[in-house]
Amino acid sequence: MKMKRTHTCGELTAEAVDAEVALSGWIGSKRDHGGMLFIDLKDRYGITQVVFDPQRDGSLYAEGKELKPESVISIRGAVQRRPEGNVNPDRKTGEIEVVVEEVELLNRSETPPFEIVDDCGASEELRMKYRYLDLRRDVMRENMVFRHRVYQSMRRYLSGQGFIEVETPTLIKSTPEGARDYLVPSRKFAGRFFALPQSPQIFKQLLMIAGFDKYFQIARCYRDEDIRADRQPEFTQLDVEMSFVDEDDVMAMNEGLLKFLMKDLLNVEVGTPFKRLPFDEAIGKYGLDAPAIRFGMALVDVSDVCADAGFKVFQSIVASGGIVKGINAKGASNYSRRQLDELTAYVGEYGAKGLVWFKVESEEGADVLKSPTAKFFDAAHQGRIIERMSAEAGDLLLFVADKPEVASTAVGRLRVHLARQLDLIPGDTFEFCWVTEFPMFEFNEEFGCLAARHHPFTSPTEGTLDDLEKEPLRVRARAYDLVLNGVEIAGGSIRINTPELQRRVFRALGTGEEEADEKFGFLIEALKYGAPPHGGIAYGFDRFVAILRGIDRIRDVIAFPKTTTAQCLLSGAPAAVDEKQLKELKLKIIRDV
Amino acid sequence: MKMKRTHTCGELTAEAVDAEVALSGWIGSKRDHGGMLFIDLKDRYGITQVVFDPQRDGSLYAEGKELKPESVISIRGAVQRRPEGNVNPDRKTGEIEVVVEEVELLNRSETPPFEIVDDCGASEELRMKYRYLDLRRDVMRENMVFRHRVYQSMRRYLSGQGFIEVETPTLIKSTPEGARDYLVPSRKFAGRFFALPQSPQIFKQLLMIAGFDKYFQIARCYRDEDIRADRQPEFTQLDVEMSFVDEDDVMAMNEGLLKFLMKDLLNVEVGTPFKRLPFDEAIGKYGLDAPAIRFGMALVDVSDVCADAGFKVFQSIVASGGIVKGINAKGASNYSRRQLDELTAYVGEYGAKGLVWFKVESEEGADVLKSPTAKFFDAAHQGRIIERMSAEAGDLLLFVADKPEVASTAVGRLRVHLARQLDLIPGDTFEFCWVTEFPMFEFNEEFGCLAARHHPFTSPTEGTLDDLEKEPLRVRARAYDLVLNGVEIAGGSIRINTPELQRRVFRALGTGEEEADEKFGFLIEALKYGAPPHGGIAYGFDRFVAILRGIDRIRDVIAFPKTTTAQCLLSGAPAAVDEKQLKELKLKIIRDV
Repeated sequence: MKMKRTHTCGELTAEAVDAEVALSGWIGSKRDHGGMLFIDLKDRYGITQVVFDPQRDGSLYAEGKELKPESVISIRGAVQRRPEGNVNPDRKTGEIEVVVEEVELLNRSETPPFEIVDDCGASEELRMKYRYLDLRRDVMRENMVFRHRVYQSMRRYLSGQGFIEVETPTLIKSTPEGARDYLVPSRKFAGRFFALPQSPQIFKQLLMIAGFDKYFQIARCYRDEDIRADRQPEFTQLDVEMSFVDEDDVMAMNEGLLKFLMKDLLNVEVGTPFKRLPFDEAIGKYGLDAPAIRFGMALVDVSDVCADAGFKVFQSIVASGGIVKGINAKGASNYSRRQLDELTAYVGEYGAKGLVWFKVESEEGADVLKSPTAKFFDAAHQGRIIERMSAEAGDLLLFVADKPEVASTAVGRLRVHLARQLDLIPGDTFEFCWVTEFPMFEFNEEFGCLAARHHPFTSPTEGTLDDLEKEPLRVRARAYDLVLNGVEIAGGSIRINTPELQRRVFRALGTGEEEADEKFGFLIEALKYGAPPHGGIAYGFDRFVAILRGIDRIRDVIAFPKTTTAQCLLSGAPAAVDEKQLKELKLKIIRDV
Repeated sequence: MKMKRTHTCGELTAEAVDAEVALSGWIGSKRDHGGMLFIDLKDRYGITQVVFDPQRDGSLYAEGKELKPESVISIRGAVQRRPEGNVNPDRKTGEIEVVVEEVELLNRSETPPFEIVDDCGASEELRMKYRYLDLRRDVMRENMVFRHRVYQSMRRYLSGQGFIEVETPTLIKSTPEGARDYLVPSRKFAGRFFALPQSPQIFKQLLMIAGFDKYFQIARCYRDEDIRADRQPEFTQLDVEMSFVDEDDVMAMNEGLLKFLMKDLLNVEVGTPFKRLPFDEAIGKYGLDAPAIRFGMALVDVSDVCADAGFKVFQSIVASGGIVKGINAKGASNYSRRQLDELTAYVGEYGAKGLVWFKVESEEGADVLKSPTAKFFDAAHQGRIIERMSAEAGDLLLFVADKPEVASTAVGRLRVHLARQLDLIPGDTFEFCWVTEFPMFEFNEEFGCLAARHHPFTSPTEGTLDDLEKEPLRVRARAYDLVLNGVEIAGGSIRINTPELQRRVFRALGTGEEEADEKFGFLIEALKYGAPPHGGIAYGFDRFVAILRGIDRIRDVIAFPKTTTAQCLLSGAPAAVDEKQLKELKLKIIRDV
């Protein structure tokens, strides 16, 4: 490198005219106009047009002609004002160009496997294999620069609020719950393993017991899950914990954080406090525990109406404890049969066995239901449904009858799906809400036992504490989720802070005393030495960044993501390792026969 | 928690007298004076004295008497000025106390296994097992709060300089060099493994190829090493990389960073640029590649003088390519035989087979050497040694004769050891220096082959490039280490940025084409698509924080450290895991017979 750059490629303006400068960067587009060669020289900061003039220096011009796209060069030359018609007002450097007097080829590039432009048309696989080229595209670089800004803003705010950043260990004890742990074999203690943390949960609680009062960390976490479309085996979490607080304190702190972030990062004003929605209401009105509340089309339960209507299918479902739940797609009565079939298939993905639809039409001055099913509903019942659904002519009513959870989820998903189709979702708005009063436990069908809905360190509410032993499914947790535009971005709770209650919860979960001691004995022990009341929250950092950027896929806001099968296409990880490495770990691979 | 605190325990001053306040915290020391009970209520922010007055409320007083140390309480009461003689000027809250009107026991503590005071007298093992209590001690909390400040200052400075923080993956491909990788079995691809990174080296280079220009990250790194006193299996690194730079740029950037940090964190002014010491000079004058330069006592090579002196031992060592190197411990001629034996034993730890000493005495107006060995040196040779060592009466001269590396290291270590004994090291000063022009390779005795001294991605210097194939041990690297007070705190280099040179270095290391492709093919491939000149540095974050805090052990600046055998005494990791987990990974443990 003979020449050191005096400026970046995003810096020079008309003020620099006549200055002698040196630039370094990548060869972007090349054009030959009127015998002159124009090259867009690119770097992270921008693009500067550099000119090779054969009249000035024929061999330099020839050299310029040979430069391959994406090669790295340094140039030296004088800044000159562009001719009148050639000014590019969209570019900061658009008024000037640099007339090249000297060029140094720093590195020649082979032809890249795809063009380095935003709309590159390459498959995601190819982009991941050549991630360093993918990241050279403006859109990806901007994602990463934005992510950088999110880190800094979060930490600045939290530090300013007295939170202490502490790194917690990532080679920890395996305490799998929910997802599988990634394991790390110990060499010094053959046959024993570390695990990579699914979250810093226990350690942040220990920090509260240590008296740290307010803690945060942007922490790497790990889950060995089966394929799910938009999860990563390693992901990032903003982790926060506070002492001497209740739910209101944690929520207020987070509202302050988000108000700051949205202003600082996007210049968006967010009103606080955020809406709070008890879990039951979220399920009732939106069918989902992460409800999208930016648009209406709330779910309506018409079980009572259907109980005595003439439609046997609905009747029997209601009679056996099921419900009939639906939504009113205003003005959508023009949906075609094909579209309705698509909606039926859609709810099928969420376990619904069918979708009953009615179009509302005006007939002789009265609104009536039209559909193959409508005939099972007499005028009175049709009227009650129309009234209940606040329907009018031109509307499309859609119903699922099923077990309560299935019906709610299916219609809840359908609501969001339809809102997209009907363009009901306001763009560029950010609506936060809290979902509260979650059930403490849920029944795990796979293992036939109770499981903690949040995690077993969550405190039950005072009012439902007595149900712990009697009717655990009625116990409510002091847990809260933060939902942004229908996506859960954070979740947290007030924690258990006495060994007695912690043991009761383990018992309710069917964890034996011995197992609890073996797995979590160190936490139970710690709770004996002055554990303050404490609670906190954890944000899915990748998801949060993606939503703020208006991006669906978290992979696009992660520098080097893995595929849905947890592979790194760039490096080829995971890969085979030397037999010697395994031997040192006293491990043997069981080959399938 | 009935009462929410209105203030922390480090907040109330005389201005708050008569205010009604609520505080929460831990029970510190308790004293009963004149029938009144005084409790130090502690939290992260400080200590406030609270008073239980039996005259006011007898049952409250009785309740207070029962409170066990380290229990967590909330109190409500009025702030009052302390009586004249009871003011504690060392404490921010020392002018006031709070007269308790209501108390709530939030959590009762059992008697802790050691007293929560700075000088707790507990073994490090006990402190690690009950780390949450250890961290409650002022000294440990202050370490962690200081560490928090270091994170924030570093990031603030680097962000301000245009560096982008990027998270690189930690489930990567195993490419062991030097230390062992920790492995992570893949479940989806049974028999294959991820590795935890020893550093983000390759990924940060890929970010430069991606055009990020300036990158940083405070990254968790992992090394499965055998026991070394002050290393951790997982440790933290400040990782930095820059494009279009040479050594001077990287050094200047780091000098700016450190100038800022030292001022911001410790209010210490540091002069820049830092001294630069070529590797050969560091070894020559200080015997070590991380030289302590805050004091003199430089090493002196007296091989030439000894070559023809009458002392056979020295003569034959010099004749066979060894050297005689020594230091002058000014004014230390009063060292006792026992002290000299201790020094001999000390250099023995570094491989020296002996230590030859002379006391310089004045005899009949001339300085002469005194020691059992002195008789082998005639007056002329004694005079030459005295002159060469700039010695005078009262000095102690110490020499090691051995192979060059052994003699340099042993005397270099002895120099630091003696400086401590003789109190030559100025306290509370921070002296930075760069060590440069490192050898590119070293001979690895264990494997009988060359190894990269820094890493194989380091660029050789232009001037020694031609030696790569002919005489690789003569090749110098564009590497630099940053040394603070005799401890290496950071190391870096300008990297190779062409596939051709990268292949030449792999060949020099004896890495076959196929092996290089298999392990590092993705990097070599990336170098083909426009890799800019780039270089960077990585700081041992834990060590850096420890030095700034004046602490020897990095374990004391890590919240939850592991032992030297890589165990977590708190949680018991590593631990046995369920057979089911191993089965899913298709792994079997080989039990020793």
